[in-house]
Amino acid sequence: MAIEKYHNRSHMCGVLRESDIGSTVTLYGWVQKRRDLGGLIFIDLRDRTGIIQIICDQDISRQAFMEAEKIGSEYVVTVRGKVERRTSENPNMPTGTIEVYAETLDIINEAQTPPIYIKDDDEVSESLRLKYRYLDLRKPSMQANLLLRQKISNFVRFFLSNEAFIEVETPVLTKPTPEGARDYLVPSRVNAGKFYALPQSPQLFKQLLMVSGLDRYFQIVKCFRDEDLRADRQPEFTQIDCEMSFVNQEDVIELNSRMLKKMISEIKGVELSLPFPRLTYKESMEKYGSDKPDLRFEMELIDLSDLMANCGFKVFSDTVNNGGQVKCIKVDGKAENLSRKDIGKLEDIAKTYGAKGLAWMKVEIDNDVNAPIKKFFSSDEIQSILQKTEAENGDILLFVADKPSVVAAALGHLRVDIANKFNLYDKNTYQFVWITDFPLLEYDEETKRYVAMHHPFTSPVVEDIEKLTSDPANVKAQAYDIVLNGYEIGGGSIRIHSSDLQSDMFKALGFTEEETREKFGFLLDAFQYGTPPHGGIAFGLDRLAMILAGEENIRQVIAFPKTQNATCPLTDAPSTADQRQLQELYIKTDLPSIDN
Amino acid sequence: MAIEKYHNRSHMCGVLRESDIGSTVTLYGWVQKRRDLGGLIFIDLRDRTGIIQIICDQDISRQAFMEAEKIGSEYVVTVRGKVERRTSENPNMPTGTIEVYAETLDIINEAQTPPIYIKDDDEVSESLRLKYRYLDLRKPSMQANLLLRQKISNFVRFFLSNEAFIEVETPVLTKPTPEGARDYLVPSRVNAGKFYALPQSPQLFKQLLMVSGLDRYFQIVKCFRDEDLRADRQPEFTQIDCEMSFVNQEDVIELNSRMLKKMISEIKGVELSLPFPRLTYKESMEKYGSDKPDLRFEMELIDLSDLMANCGFKVFSDTVNNGGQVKCIKVDGKAENLSRKDIGKLEDIAKTYGAKGLAWMKVEIDNDVNAPIKKFFSSDEIQSILQKTEAENGDILLFVADKPSVVAAALGHLRVDIANKFNLYDKNTYQFVWITDFPLLEYDEETKRYVAMHHPFTSPVVEDIEKLTSDPANVKAQAYDIVLNGYEIGGGSIRIHSSDLQSDMFKALGFTEEETREKFGFLLDAFQYGTPPHGGIAFGLDRLAMILAGEENIRQVIAFPKTQNATCPLTDAPSTADQRQLQELYIKTDLPSIDN
Repeated sequence: MAIEKYHNRSHMCGVLRESDIGSTVTLYGWVQKRRDLGGLIFIDLRDRTGIIQIICDQDISRQAFMEAEKIGSEYVVTVRGKVERRTSENPNMPTGTIEVYAETLDIINEAQTPPIYIKDDDEVSESLRLKYRYLDLRKPSMQANLLLRQKISNFVRFFLSNEAFIEVETPVLTKPTPEGARDYLVPSRVNAGKFYALPQSPQLFKQLLMVSGLDRYFQIVKCFRDEDLRADRQPEFTQIDCEMSFVNQEDVIELNSRMLKKMISEIKGVELSLPFPRLTYKESMEKYGSDKPDLRFEMELIDLSDLMANCGFKVFSDTVNNGGQVKCIKVDGKAENLSRKDIGKLEDIAKTYGAKGLAWMKVEIDNDVNAPIKKFFSSDEIQSILQKTEAENGDILLFVADKPSVVAAALGHLRVDIANKFNLYDKNTYQFVWITDFPLLEYDEETKRYVAMHHPFTSPVVEDIEKLTSDPANVKAQAYDIVLNGYEIGGGSIRIHSSDLQSDMFKALGFTEEETREKFGFLLDAFQYGTPPHGGIAFGLDRLAMILAGEENIRQVIAFPKTQNATCPLTDAPSTADQRQLQELYIKTDLPSIDN
Repeated sequence: MAIEKYHNRSHMCGVLRESDIGSTVTLYGWVQKRRDLGGLIFIDLRDRTGIIQIICDQDISRQAFMEAEKIGSEYVVTVRGKVERRTSENPNMPTGTIEVYAETLDIINEAQTPPIYIKDDDEVSESLRLKYRYLDLRKPSMQANLLLRQKISNFVRFFLSNEAFIEVETPVLTKPTPEGARDYLVPSRVNAGKFYALPQSPQLFKQLLMVSGLDRYFQIVKCFRDEDLRADRQPEFTQIDCEMSFVNQEDVIELNSRMLKKMISEIKGVELSLPFPRLTYKESMEKYGSDKPDLRFEMELIDLSDLMANCGFKVFSDTVNNGGQVKCIKVDGKAENLSRKDIGKLEDIAKTYGAKGLAWMKVEIDNDVNAPIKKFFSSDEIQSILQKTEAENGDILLFVADKPSVVAAALGHLRVDIANKFNLYDKNTYQFVWITDFPLLEYDEETKRYVAMHHPFTSPVVEDIEKLTSDPANVKAQAYDIVLNGYEIGGGSIRIHSSDLQSDMFKALGFTEEETREKFGFLLDAFQYGTPPHGGIAFGLDRLAMILAGEENIRQVIAFPKTQNATCPLTDAPSTADQRQLQELYIKTDLPSIDN
């Protein structure tokens, strides 16, 4: 066929329906499957919209039949033919009641046998999938994920534009920003010996836009962190970034709650009610052992410290008397489902979070218990545990005794693992919770100084401002995180808008005046010229898309992601650079010599 | 006032109208101006939406009056008061019929005297404007530009989403791409000695998405070129990037023409008709001396070469006989407006484009001419020039004789300069033209080899494919540019979709097989697995926004642009990096020593 004529496509493959019966259609697509059956060749023809069955019958078109004999999987072909009712309907396909009898069939491009199957349940290794990402992205599930991601972005842009937010693009080649992770650096050719940094977030620019009086800003924007990668982190990631002037924490929470509710309604068809629940950081840590609690199920941490302070079990009482805690979670009705071996596995998990062990107690009939630690307790002590935990026959209690941070981490993670193990929640539930009242500062044992828990531009709550120098550990921040199904999907704060308070904050963080000036002088200057109070939030789009797509790995919602080693198996990036290029940039590589 | 209460804003300043008379409003904004008039203080209060006049009358509120006495320009304040009809209306302001009598006024943040005025006609240097960009962006014109830019982006996203395009994000940390400009490099910490490149465009990824069967892709995306900067270039710029499968050049032109027509209608309220005019590259160079002709005015280049081949003026005849050209432009009715001094200036312009001189001829009554070169021509020759150019009394002809590239450049630029000088077009006109039939390859005198005029993935026209090896200079490309008012705002091509043809193309460009494999092996591989024919286009969003905003500098439509030296006077990027950081990245700086 002439290369010039492609605009005669009449339909996409997957949109044909019974109402098209009798029409002659021209289709373009990929051969999903070919089956030969006597004088007939059946082809499943696939495009972005789905699959339609093509029949090449040599009695109808010898040309089509002869061409069809040459084709294999993933050939690109065009078919012209008539839509007919299918004799044996396939109820599993949206086009399952019809088929197209080919009048002409032309091969547009051939295909070698692909190294991975183009089907959703192909269980090939992820590295192979990433190397042949262009084939992997032919899978309907991957295309659906990319479409979902676009739907989220479009929704957000539409919602925020309607709420008078202006999308403003901020620089990618910029100055190091203070988010705390490592920056990616970009050597400058024009400015010898100098470097740009890729932004970890547009934090400073969005604050400057508030100084500009833009009032409401947003941006869906790539950000960069050179961190050691975890399962749900990428060197580059996309943020939905917002900032508003003349607002307090309630305003930010209200607007963003409305946005999220509407997003879930439009994208998942699930109606949530407002306001979303809230927990203070302290409550969340106490009840769920985490600042990103999954509230799709209960199983709160129950504090038994008071009860155990004087109990007969020395491991528990000593822990409490040395400033530690004893807490437990209660797994309703699962005593019989957890064997000693299962409990051993849970104990291993608890140990990875620092716990020294995992004690347990199965509740039996008549308030009796089955537990290795039973012998250390008086009967009254057992009864008071059962009373406090409201444990009943068939329940199991799992205890950790340790310093509060270990108790929280161990039981917090166990809680989630057990819920997953026993399917204790509905997968199609979207449970948001705002976490508020974070501490402003954390003491860093390593550097022996305070670091900002959120970032240095977060405002303390007004009544704590005076404690910034006298009692920094107990200053609360006007900061908030939004958590969905146990993932932190966003966070933000009301910012400092006073030059003096911002200077005090840098002092509290141990910055010298010189450091402050060099890094943030322009922000302190800006704050001198009429800065409105302002605050904002940023959402991780990748993670949000992952959750709404029902995936467990952000690489599933990114077209061309990097591996855990920050490489791209498809393009082989990063790669070596040639000397001439490095010379132009006034740098050379400085590799560790092999001798050392 | 308590910091916590900002959500009581009832209106934005600029939206108040006569219908609000009698209401009590709460406003937040910046003090544009304060005037004291006896017992009254007048304040122009500004926010993003405009300005409203506030009156502080001590008889109405002593508190408001006392506070107002303390404030200066750019203070951030909140005012509560009643909207009243204004006694002396100001027809130049949308809020000019009303004013607000302050009942309370509170200072939210103070301001030092700003180093630049917050008004559109402030004639301060651009470097000062960039250093205090947060103040510069308070200007209504700059905010209007940012809003216009968002409007364009939103329009494009809406239009393309409706046309079944999927927006897909492609990587920023990637492999060097082959657009021909220098890449920005990013050293990798995890992969010692290796570098990512920032993309000059998402070209390869968008083609891979077509291999994936996504069918229609777009993205509004930052791209990066480390070029020596011109007035309308930035190290990072934003591209509206599209790609479609199963299309030919007509399909791409048709869809994008519709998009641009609708954009101009929605954003500028100007109705254009389709199809947009088209010129081949050859026609455009011949008639306008440029491949980005401004068609808002005529003044075509007129070829007199045949006429001059045997004329008495040796400069002209020799040029023609040595393979050169003699061309002129005719400026209608402007003979009297161009003094010898003016013509001297035009000649200087022509010389900057390589012309050795600029000959001229003013047409007088009765087909007589006034021209220094008149003496070299016979009367018949003069008459034939006048006939060919259709020149009449009062017109002036400007001639350049040289090799074709110099004639085109010199007259092409003169044409534009003269049109600007004499306002030969309506500023509110949007004149699009498609340029087609570009050569596929250009011979590079320096490297003595052919280079791709567009990029190496552009498909030759089908009938020229065989000439790729035998006659590369005469192969036409399936490439097209879209030009608006003399600016190239976009360009694209139908791509090669055959692995063999793509290999031939790399060969024609002088790439060794090893180079091809290393740089583009993954693309050639991808083309083996069922690649659809595809093509696309990319628009420069910055330049498009600049034109629609009526600006002459793209920095006017970018919130935080870089200077010509690729620096940011606001943040002082790029800056030096500390040694520890460079060590982690396995690089060191390699500055030229001062001795050399």
